[in-house]
Amino acid sequence: MDMLWNGWGDPVKAAPLPDSVTALLRDLLGVKPRGTEPLALTDVPVSGPTAAPAALAALADAVGGAEHVRTDAESRIRHTRGKSTPDLLRIRSGDTTDVPQAVVLPGSHDEVLAVLRACSAHALAVVPFGGGTSVVGGLAPERRDFVALDLRRMDGLLDLDPVSRTAVLQPGLRAPQAEALLAGRGFTLGHFPQSFEWATVGGFAAARSSGQASAGYGRFDEMVLGLTLATPEGTVETGRAPRSAAGPDVRQLILGSEGAFGVITSVTVRVRPLPERRVYEGWRFASFDEGAAALRRLAQDGPRPTVLRLSDETETLIGLAQPDAIGAGLANSDAGCLAITGYEGTAEDTAQRREQAAAVLRECGGTLVGAEPGERWAHGRYSAPYLRDALLDVGAFAETLETAAFWSRVPELYTAVRTALTDTLTEAGTPPLVMCHVSHVYENGASLYFTVVSAQGEDPVTHWTPAKHAANEAILAVGGTISHHHGVGTDHRDWYVREAGPLAVDALRAVKRRLDPEGLLNPGVLLPTD
Amino acid sequence: MDMLWNGWGDPVKAAPLPDSVTALLRDLLGVKPRGTEPLALTDVPVSGPTAAPAALAALADAVGGAEHVRTDAESRIRHTRGKSTPDLLRIRSGDTTDVPQAVVLPGSHDEVLAVLRACSAHALAVVPFGGGTSVVGGLAPERRDFVALDLRRMDGLLDLDPVSRTAVLQPGLRAPQAEALLAGRGFTLGHFPQSFEWATVGGFAAARSSGQASAGYGRFDEMVLGLTLATPEGTVETGRAPRSAAGPDVRQLILGSEGAFGVITSVTVRVRPLPERRVYEGWRFASFDEGAAALRRLAQDGPRPTVLRLSDETETLIGLAQPDAIGAGLANSDAGCLAITGYEGTAEDTAQRREQAAAVLRECGGTLVGAEPGERWAHGRYSAPYLRDALLDVGAFAETLETAAFWSRVPELYTAVRTALTDTLTEAGTPPLVMCHVSHVYENGASLYFTVVSAQGEDPVTHWTPAKHAANEAILAVGGTISHHHGVGTDHRDWYVREAGPLAVDALRAVKRRLDPEGLLNPGVLLPTD
Repeated sequence: MDMLWNGWGDPVKAAPLPDSVTALLRDLLGVKPRGTEPLALTDVPVSGPTAAPAALAALADAVGGAEHVRTDAESRIRHTRGKSTPDLLRIRSGDTTDVPQAVVLPGSHDEVLAVLRACSAHALAVVPFGGGTSVVGGLAPERRDFVALDLRRMDGLLDLDPVSRTAVLQPGLRAPQAEALLAGRGFTLGHFPQSFEWATVGGFAAARSSGQASAGYGRFDEMVLGLTLATPEGTVETGRAPRSAAGPDVRQLILGSEGAFGVITSVTVRVRPLPERRVYEGWRFASFDEGAAALRRLAQDGPRPTVLRLSDETETLIGLAQPDAIGAGLANSDAGCLAITGYEGTAEDTAQRREQAAAVLRECGGTLVGAEPGERWAHGRYSAPYLRDALLDVGAFAETLETAAFWSRVPELYTAVRTALTDTLTEAGTPPLVMCHVSHVYENGASLYFTVVSAQGEDPVTHWTPAKHAANEAILAVGGTISHHHGVGTDHRDWYVREAGPLAVDALRAVKRRLDPEGLLNPGVLLPTD
Repeated sequence: MDMLWNGWGDPVKAAPLPDSVTALLRDLLGVKPRGTEPLALTDVPVSGPTAAPAALAALADAVGGAEHVRTDAESRIRHTRGKSTPDLLRIRSGDTTDVPQAVVLPGSHDEVLAVLRACSAHALAVVPFGGGTSVVGGLAPERRDFVALDLRRMDGLLDLDPVSRTAVLQPGLRAPQAEALLAGRGFTLGHFPQSFEWATVGGFAAARSSGQASAGYGRFDEMVLGLTLATPEGTVETGRAPRSAAGPDVRQLILGSEGAFGVITSVTVRVRPLPERRVYEGWRFASFDEGAAALRRLAQDGPRPTVLRLSDETETLIGLAQPDAIGAGLANSDAGCLAITGYEGTAEDTAQRREQAAAVLRECGGTLVGAEPGERWAHGRYSAPYLRDALLDVGAFAETLETAAFWSRVPELYTAVRTALTDTLTEAGTPPLVMCHVSHVYENGASLYFTVVSAQGEDPVTHWTPAKHAANEAILAVGGTISHHHGVGTDHRDWYVREAGPLAVDALRAVKRRLDPEGLLNPGVLLPTD
């Protein structure tokens, strides 16, 4: 099944907003209905491809036949950009400037190498394409003459070692497929980002994804034990031990490389036994600061829940912490801040951690709300992107962004980003709702995930840009990182370069030049082109 | 205080072997007393320096005065090579081929940059020098015209953030100094490698050190949150958040770079509250396999002790697991395999983990021996290198090497390395004692640490080389890593290059060329020179 071309996810799951929410948006934010009818897929203008027939023939040779090279308009539109709000707005407006020349579907590591050779021979750039869920412009290179390298045919579980608890996964496996294959052997990866239903293993690795259960299972980059990378100059294979002192960790050079160094063709991951039990519940804190202090205490001194999140007052009030209940919280102005705690594991382990964590949370001022908010969160955990589509449909603007910092900087980071977003959009005549939650916790810091909802403004993409830039500036000024788990892409690149500094960026460009001397791979994504 | 120039550690702690052990070595291994008197420091031949006076003057300018540039023979001898057994044997024989031209002591990051500029101007190579404890040839570059950059003046705690639980340490801090400074603020780093008493923070980072309490506190590379690197091309600064999706993790590119990319001038680390309690105890397992299975169970399913180690039958028998008791175990041929478990933390936490871990260890066939072996291990944990000196003094050869692999490969790795060492040294006429312990555990694998004792043979360095090479070959053949925590240096470099593969090595060389275009930094260490 293909994802909705102009929105998120399974088309049958798309649902319009309840009238009550539409009314709320109108009254609170001045959201006005869109004046134009939505564009149909068949009405999206696509020209070309302009790639030479010889190039397309070479690509077909590389992947074992013309059936694995798609040049039809629909395939190309479906591989145009990712799923950020600007991406959706652009494709909905019929803007196909970033359309690939062709969609190429390799079936193996060797076929990926062959595609890279063919692209080199015919001067085509290559954009690796997993689930197509990038929200940072990771699929919009700076060149027009590129092919999308869709890895969906490489969707196998190649090996499972139950003694070492490792699995070798192909990159095109979507997370639910991977979980199903592992569950058949009694294991789980434990990686549940909001993009879970569509994103792929290769994409998780390439973009340093982090899932909603990261407190318990770790980030995706912490799960990766080995990688195979196909580059125009050959193959890199890493990972002979969980940890090593044999030089710099090349795994950590490939993780986060966003397709700019090569195409990840297999990922060796840590797996864990399927949990016997999953328990989620809600806690109320009087303030965001009080809740954050409680989360910090659990992250630093334990016991560590598997899931640990905290919504600020606004997000709690709006009910976004429980996407099924939008607006319900508005009735209760004393809602405080809702935290979700989750425990996954054996019956004994979850019971023990839950009891001990509850004692800590109470000591920190928390009140147990009960299982209902936890279960509701778990039920709705992948539904926010559907909600965004519905918001866009009624003329609202909705986007998310995220960052992370050391704990002592988190309060300042929260205020700075919130203020930057609020001030910029208010000055532009569309005062926003800015909501935030602590989405991932570590001993030494945490990430903040912001959701912005406002009226769209005249041209919604250009209307949003100054607010996004102001948020980026605020993040850098306070000392946060430009992305905790969305990645760099093209949207964050200029701020990433400032964060990393010119010499570190140049060192990474030196790596790119060695692995991709012709600059075929994701030109302009992550790293500036020469 | 300076370390013993021709051996390990504090000269007053050196102790001769008891006669009983000397007799044992003679009877078991045919160790014969050395025929020559030990060389005095003042009799070690050193010529030069040959560096131009203008070069030395420029170095003095760089570091604020001639008193921070040492060219006397003693200083240069004390900065010649590291502390591997071949290093000790070479310096004891008066071999000073690897002596630096001068020892330069910068006092700040900017002075390090100035030293690098001076070295560039005068075509001198630079070997960063922390505690001088490398056991892999990390201080023996391929060029003769080099200076040792001793970081001992940079020994401050620059910042401590008790909220984020982070500390900024200068690289020349020895571990005990760092622990004392942190303890004054109520914190610990928790990094206790065997080299603890002498090794430095910068060295830990540069070589990806791992301490004896890694099960609880993690490896050093897992403690590092940020780094400052001085290179001939400028400064790299990393680490704005505990984790980030902003590109490849540059921290992990600097960690393990062994001075070849630059000089680490500050390290931001995770710190933890000083433990209230430390408890160590011994467990007996019938076999190494049974014990390893028990360790694996704790590493995978918890609870995780802070210290977790397991000696094989030979090491247990010899008593090397408790260095104060060499030979004592020989009386008991049914000693089995001794494991050491340790718990550090709050009273409540250590009691709970200890009780739950004990239940698991019993289920896995373990028998609690009691606190005595644990306390004895803790007491003697840094004494093995002194023992090695005493062994060398009486004509024995003693060396260690280590590796790691995924759990399912560990039994094969154990057998292969053991066999390679035993066969090679036996064929050479010096049948060895080969002992081993599991020194570090992870969910997905473990490290093996081997100790070899034999007679020295005619020329002990050349006698050892084929055995070391055979062990390296065995490690690569079975799929282990060439080093779990000692590093690459020059000794492991050729095997490291095979392990990493030519393209990954070339990518790292591209990084080096960007940061160190003249190849001044540790030439030939880690990476082959052009």
